[in-house]
Amino acid sequence: MNSKWIWYYGDFEMYHSQKLHLRRKERNVVFPAIWYVPGVYSGVRFRKKVKIDREEDICVTANGVGFVQIGAVKYEFGKKITLHKGEYFVTINVSNMTGLPCAYVEGDTVKSNEEWTADYYNGKWKKVGCSSSYTDKNVVPDTFIFKYKKILPLEKTVQKGGVLYDFGKETFARIVFKKLSKNITVFFGESEYEALDTKNNCQYEAFGVEDIDKNFEAKAFRYIYIPDIGENEVDFDAYYEYLPVEKKGAFESSDDMLNKIWNVSADTLELNSREFFLDGIKRDRWVWSGDSYQSYFVNRYLFFDEDIVRRTIIALGGKGEVEQHINTILDYSFYWIMSIYDYYEMTGDMEFVADIFPRMKAVMDFCLSRLDKNGFASKMDAGDWIFIDWADIDKTGAVCAEQMLFLRSLEVFIKCADMLGIENSDYLFKRDDLEKKINEYYWSDEKGAFIDSFESGKNNVTRHANIFALLFGYAEGEKREAIIKNVILNDDVAQITTPYFKFYELDAMCSIGQIEYAINEVEDYWGGMIKAGATSFWEWFDPNVPWQDTLAMYGDEYGKSLCHAWGAGPIYLIGRYLLGVRPTSAGYKTFEVKPELGRFDFVEAKVPIKDGIVSIKKNGRVLEVMTDRDGGVLIYNSNNIVLHKNKSVSIEA
Amino acid sequence: MNSKWIWYYGDFEMYHSQKLHLRRKERNVVFPAIWYVPGVYSGVRFRKKVKIDREEDICVTANGVGFVQIGAVKYEFGKKITLHKGEYFVTINVSNMTGLPCAYVEGDTVKSNEEWTADYYNGKWKKVGCSSSYTDKNVVPDTFIFKYKKILPLEKTVQKGGVLYDFGKETFARIVFKKLSKNITVFFGESEYEALDTKNNCQYEAFGVEDIDKNFEAKAFRYIYIPDIGENEVDFDAYYEYLPVEKKGAFESSDDMLNKIWNVSADTLELNSREFFLDGIKRDRWVWSGDSYQSYFVNRYLFFDEDIVRRTIIALGGKGEVEQHINTILDYSFYWIMSIYDYYEMTGDMEFVADIFPRMKAVMDFCLSRLDKNGFASKMDAGDWIFIDWADIDKTGAVCAEQMLFLRSLEVFIKCADMLGIENSDYLFKRDDLEKKINEYYWSDEKGAFIDSFESGKNNVTRHANIFALLFGYAEGEKREAIIKNVILNDDVAQITTPYFKFYELDAMCSIGQIEYAINEVEDYWGGMIKAGATSFWEWFDPNVPWQDTLAMYGDEYGKSLCHAWGAGPIYLIGRYLLGVRPTSAGYKTFEVKPELGRFDFVEAKVPIKDGIVSIKKNGRVLEVMTDRDGGVLIYNSNNIVLHKNKSVSIEA
Repeated sequence: MNSKWIWYYGDFEMYHSQKLHLRRKERNVVFPAIWYVPGVYSGVRFRKKVKIDREEDICVTANGVGFVQIGAVKYEFGKKITLHKGEYFVTINVSNMTGLPCAYVEGDTVKSNEEWTADYYNGKWKKVGCSSSYTDKNVVPDTFIFKYKKILPLEKTVQKGGVLYDFGKETFARIVFKKLSKNITVFFGESEYEALDTKNNCQYEAFGVEDIDKNFEAKAFRYIYIPDIGENEVDFDAYYEYLPVEKKGAFESSDDMLNKIWNVSADTLELNSREFFLDGIKRDRWVWSGDSYQSYFVNRYLFFDEDIVRRTIIALGGKGEVEQHINTILDYSFYWIMSIYDYYEMTGDMEFVADIFPRMKAVMDFCLSRLDKNGFASKMDAGDWIFIDWADIDKTGAVCAEQMLFLRSLEVFIKCADMLGIENSDYLFKRDDLEKKINEYYWSDEKGAFIDSFESGKNNVTRHANIFALLFGYAEGEKREAIIKNVILNDDVAQITTPYFKFYELDAMCSIGQIEYAINEVEDYWGGMIKAGATSFWEWFDPNVPWQDTLAMYGDEYGKSLCHAWGAGPIYLIGRYLLGVRPTSAGYKTFEVKPELGRFDFVEAKVPIKDGIVSIKKNGRVLEVMTDRDGGVLIYNSNNIVLHKNKSVSIEA
Repeated sequence: MNSKWIWYYGDFEMYHSQKLHLRRKERNVVFPAIWYVPGVYSGVRFRKKVKIDREEDICVTANGVGFVQIGAVKYEFGKKITLHKGEYFVTINVSNMTGLPCAYVEGDTVKSNEEWTADYYNGKWKKVGCSSSYTDKNVVPDTFIFKYKKILPLEKTVQKGGVLYDFGKETFARIVFKKLSKNITVFFGESEYEALDTKNNCQYEAFGVEDIDKNFEAKAFRYIYIPDIGENEVDFDAYYEYLPVEKKGAFESSDDMLNKIWNVSADTLELNSREFFLDGIKRDRWVWSGDSYQSYFVNRYLFFDEDIVRRTIIALGGKGEVEQHINTILDYSFYWIMSIYDYYEMTGDMEFVADIFPRMKAVMDFCLSRLDKNGFASKMDAGDWIFIDWADIDKTGAVCAEQMLFLRSLEVFIKCADMLGIENSDYLFKRDDLEKKINEYYWSDEKGAFIDSFESGKNNVTRHANIFALLFGYAEGEKREAIIKNVILNDDVAQITTPYFKFYELDAMCSIGQIEYAINEVEDYWGGMIKAGATSFWEWFDPNVPWQDTLAMYGDEYGKSLCHAWGAGPIYLIGRYLLGVRPTSAGYKTFEVKPELGRFDFVEAKVPIKDGIVSIKKNGRVLEVMTDRDGGVLIYNSNNIVLHKNKSVSIEA
């Protein structure tokens, strides 16, 4: 085992979250995140009781100032320390006011790793944080590890006295100039319009002749426009910056459009997978809980990367007193709570649930401390944001969709507490009471649906709350049928216009067996973006409006993100429902493969699961399924066929 | 009015406290404070509603990245912004991960100052922090303002193949080399022994030839020894680094020794008055609440600097969840609570009491959350430190002196809550109960004194708890007389061996009218240090042991501090009891001058009070008192003479 850099548990995430949330730049102005982003503990102690049988030399490297203490003796960092026979504590004091305090111990048997504990001079020793990505002494964890790949523009055209470079698809890259005859300004654009509109573009950077060889932060773009230069006056290299994480999922079929949708979804998520799951790569590049929540689902079917999920959950959870909702949004606190159980379902990682539970409780208790007179989660002051979706929801007073998420959060909280053996009867009581009240206050017999708000008297129905009711099982029997008929399949109820909520809608559709309908919707909606030339999926899309007319958002001419993580949902829908792979117990200890591939002549797909891969092929009428792990069951035409590790199962469809 | 730099209230103190607590260096190793030292909020918003009658240009300078927001428009820092007529918010977003986020606004009417509010993106807007010391745009508050004065060694002697420089008295200075022929190591010493003992000295610095002109951090020393150099091989300048704060108090009398004691006390406190009140300047240079508490008293009679008291109280109070006692010491939490009322008595500054009260409550509630089964403040885990004094106190279980401080803290807390109109009946109940229990458990009729511990069964009596009982009025009538007889005036009870507790002992003696006795003790004890050559007062002194044999402490050959703030107490004792100046209402709205100068033929003294000075002269039998403020009363031979502003009163003594 290699040594690993160790830090105070959670502080790697706090540190990189602070850095990340200070990178948004528009019109030369740094625009920090609009919520509290906590930092690291500047002074940390690392400690381990060692048992030395044979004298051994160690060397401690630290990112910061301080010393190593053994008994009463203090040792310098970077010098050889001889450990004598015996059993005793080695304590490392590291302080750093400008970076992440962390340490690295090299020895024959004494190495820094997860076996160490840390405190921040508060006397409460907890297990350290560390990562298998940081085993190299020379790669200090206050640098986040990205990889770089040189990319080339597909096309270069002279336009309006300048040069427009088209890289063929959305990317996120560093520009390094090789030839620069004068000071220039570079306009980045996700669309050609944005790049060329030097008046309204807010994603520009000035580069001076003296900046040659400087290393600039990467930017999001497909197009780059440099005004006032001749065709060959400027030369540069572009380096795609990305997280080195493997795309374990794959999908190829006889349906070309669906293949494209899957691939563009994969690119969209890859671009947004960095220190954490981002919302979009151009505009804020912040970590938003609701956006991340969907990325977790897609991640399961693409990267199956557990680390980025944990990193994102930890960063969003923050530290210290909970004084506001996550991202200031009520729904986003709830998604955050919910995500912990989903992570558990994905990984079976009970240790993380235990580690994060105190924070989960703090966030839940904060939510419970801010209920309105009816006990509903509501906007309690100007700082509270009821988001739900970019849609015309009646947000008067307590909003129904919010209560659905609140109820689901309580359930998830109780499940986690149960698993950890933590008493939770108070929460159970609140859960039951809330469910009763939701039905009492929000269910409209007249509409045969849940209404947005009972306080406005408008009895407005939108899809959102009703989608959640289906998804979380809060409408059974007649209510369920009524919702399907009166809302989901009712064209008079306003359509969803974000991929974000399309995801939940289609997830709900699939969950009620409407898989074909849902996939056709995917082809229509996401296919609509592809047809409009999307190389990554967008933040917002209305198929009925020319895409060029919808680039503005948030008061900015090109405010809309054209590479938004919540656009990657089709990978989940395809993997979960067409390929039919899902865990039936935590960490895929048992799992199900229930393909619904009737629409295809040909499919060749891979779906990652915990520590494994499910391969699914369909050729004509022959379906072939293989997994490299035990625990799976193939369900086909109501037959259950046990899948054995590395043994292919072929059936005639 | 000039503009002032503004920051999140308290964060100036957190920032400089973190920096300060990372400056201790011994044997090339940085030794951070052994308690949690919180940092700043990295992202802060400053806001003010402005009313602009006539268009005005402003410019915002910030220490960090971010922008100025007015309405929906974002402006860059450092550029002219035109404010149009109207009433609206100006908001400044500043983020800084490596320094103190702060801002400076210049305009005709719109200026940054105490009228602005700030939050850390938590939505709770509070008044900003600012200081009249930071009005210059070019002096950013993450640099603390010190002054420098060139000082020269008095003597230079060749010793053991090197050169010893004697600066004549204790100082704190930067060394800047002017001539350096080779790499050298410089050994700093408060004593000659320490400087010359290159084996055991741990206050050394290596200076390379390439370090010429480098600016090094100042060090504490009287002596400097550089081995292996010829007499003129090395040349350097030394610059005394100090806080620019005026010594308003003065004392000159016909008693030469007392004059010396006063002056050396003044030097001792001056050297320890920096960002905050330090314990000592050589060794840890940390901020310790019990040590600072005494500095506050001496400060009243020397600098009367309110800023350093507030800074120290804020820094010690910290922020966030209270997880440990201040400096990890129970008594030090109590002194901290007590100091807030003393500050109020000194300044009448109710606003600060209101500002700090939430923290005061958090610290008090923390103390209350850690009581033993009898309701006493006791060591609850390994992290709790019962200090009281460097003395042989029986610390078995709950210690009496701790309970005295606890009781006093409850009283002070209740007083402050009362002044602020905050309900406190719970605390009042606890106070009364505690007083009762102290008498029940700790008073020994047999000893006629309070015992240290009731749990050990040893009935050990030390001076400490009994001194507090006298000082705080917890022993009335017979008990009081018993303590005076059985403890204070009883030579069989071990003498105090620190100036720290000598201070409380003599304060108690004076408070029972034994002023002559106390001043004779000052002459003996502090005079003993002067006779031993002290140029600043020491951390520990036993007149019965040769001083050269007592330089070791904390396991280090020269661990003992020879310039320790708690040595400066005589200034308080002289000012408070000999010169007899004290406030009789908060902020010296009314005050008393009750000189007891019988022992002197001649006195010429100044005692600072809030916004003023009391001048006291005695020449032969003529006593002359003058103040530059109204509110004073001269008490002499049981006569009360009203002191009028700038009108001298002469009386025949």
